[in-house]
Amino acid sequence: MTRQELITEIKNKKSFLCVGLDPDIEKLPKHLLKEEDAIFAFNKAIIDATHKYCVCFKPNAAFYEAHGVKGYQSLVKTVAYIKTNYPKHFIIVDAKRGDIGNTSAMYARAFFKEMQADALTVAPYMGIDSVKPFLTYQNKWVVLLALTSNEGAFNFQTQRMVHLEHQKEVHLYEDVLKTSKQWGNDENMMYVIGATKAQWIEDVRKIVPNHFLLIPGVGAQGGSLAEVCKYGLTKDIGLLVNSSRQIIYASPNEDFAQAAATEAERMQQEMMEFF
Amino acid sequence: MTRQELITEIKNKKSFLCVGLDPDIEKLPKHLLKEEDAIFAFNKAIIDATHKYCVCFKPNAAFYEAHGVKGYQSLVKTVAYIKTNYPKHFIIVDAKRGDIGNTSAMYARAFFKEMQADALTVAPYMGIDSVKPFLTYQNKWVVLLALTSNEGAFNFQTQRMVHLEHQKEVHLYEDVLKTSKQWGNDENMMYVIGATKAQWIEDVRKIVPNHFLLIPGVGAQGGSLAEVCKYGLTKDIGLLVNSSRQIIYASPNEDFAQAAATEAERMQQEMMEFF
Repeated sequence: MTRQELITEIKNKKSFLCVGLDPDIEKLPKHLLKEEDAIFAFNKAIIDATHKYCVCFKPNAAFYEAHGVKGYQSLVKTVAYIKTNYPKHFIIVDAKRGDIGNTSAMYARAFFKEMQADALTVAPYMGIDSVKPFLTYQNKWVVLLALTSNEGAFNFQTQRMVHLEHQKEVHLYEDVLKTSKQWGNDENMMYVIGATKAQWIEDVRKIVPNHFLLIPGVGAQGGSLAEVCKYGLTKDIGLLVNSSRQIIYASPNEDFAQAAATEAERMQQEMMEFF
Repeated sequence: MTRQELITEIKNKKSFLCVGLDPDIEKLPKHLLKEEDAIFAFNKAIIDATHKYCVCFKPNAAFYEAHGVKGYQSLVKTVAYIKTNYPKHFIIVDAKRGDIGNTSAMYARAFFKEMQADALTVAPYMGIDSVKPFLTYQNKWVVLLALTSNEGAFNFQTQRMVHLEHQKEVHLYEDVLKTSKQWGNDENMMYVIGATKAQWIEDVRKIVPNHFLLIPGVGAQGGSLAEVCKYGLTKDIGLLVNSSRQIIYASPNEDFAQAAATEAERMQQEMMEFF
């Protein structure tokens, strides 16, 4: 999907909501467990119920891999289901891959060619040749980790580094932004910036004023939509705000899909005010 | 597998060789392509031929995921095959995972419980809560990326950071070592240190004198075994030296397994001299 197609969809729907598909088998409504593929049945219902209110779905690979081959199959089916039924929705597989060049090329093939996702989350630690193979696919996107929503972000990402070129101190995540934005452009790269660190987005926007940001951490993790928008919005919106648990587990009962739709609609209504 | 079991096996075999299972379908001997699962058939032959000379196998997840569900199935079968037939071999799944706590817990389940690997490579960028869930499994290991063998390691890993506690400048990879070694111990954590940066191992050993190091980059990537041993050996050996392409693609013909065995034996003979 191109940047312009994504922006058009966001403006048409007045939504920049991404629904995170993290199906934890322990939390699925009990009546689904009798299905042959409970995870896929859950996702299908969530997707059908929420697609009107969101522009993006983000399956989190770990929740599928936890169930071995059968789980991996559920992930593949989920991406294919969205692609077939809601082709205007942007699909990010949240898998946080990244390895030496020949191996990243295999991951690119796995997610962009085999699975046909639009985008993949990628970890920056291994540098340029771990990211570049993903950028060779037309209209596919790298969503690079920069400043994540979790506590561990303070271990390394927010440490100060001495930048070799100008000898100024920058945070590691700022160095990741500055360095990596030269590897691609705002038509094939986005960045993960946690909503739990919304005030930092002001600094992020100084480095990447036009790149889309994928913002996890609104909802269960405690981030605020208003704060995120205050610092992060661009003329093209420039944000995809993800919510997983707050939407998909809005009800533990048979009405889970309707409850998810209600929650997604509530978030979309909040988002409307920023257009 | 415990640290002591691994050390015993290394000393018995006079080998610290890890055979990397990176089966690129483009490079497999042509006669295998008619097999129902060519990747597994290839691996099985390589494992049977080389197990005598190595103490560890390291399947690289990307090469399996590149083939979708079928490829994932080949990975699962490969790990199970080693576990069943060569239970004294240490199995590292090289998948470079790492995410927020609840998600890393799912990856831990995927690789340690479902797949029954002994160890998983993990990326450090997301910090403590991305690593800790893996350390709750008894006798399972995190192999954390520290200083990788590729060119992109110079983007961030070797940059200088100002360490907050003592205000001294350290390289990022040193900060990763210093910080992360407090999360576990030398019985459940190892570190990836590329053979292509062998002279840096002297500095690594100042920080983690007893931890095992997984050393990729000998062979196709240009690293030298003698250099690695000079700086990295401990009284317990303390190294797992990986070779993938140089062993598994030693011959492109029907004699590929025999050629792999010959190459693995040659490396084991080189290693014998360090006991």
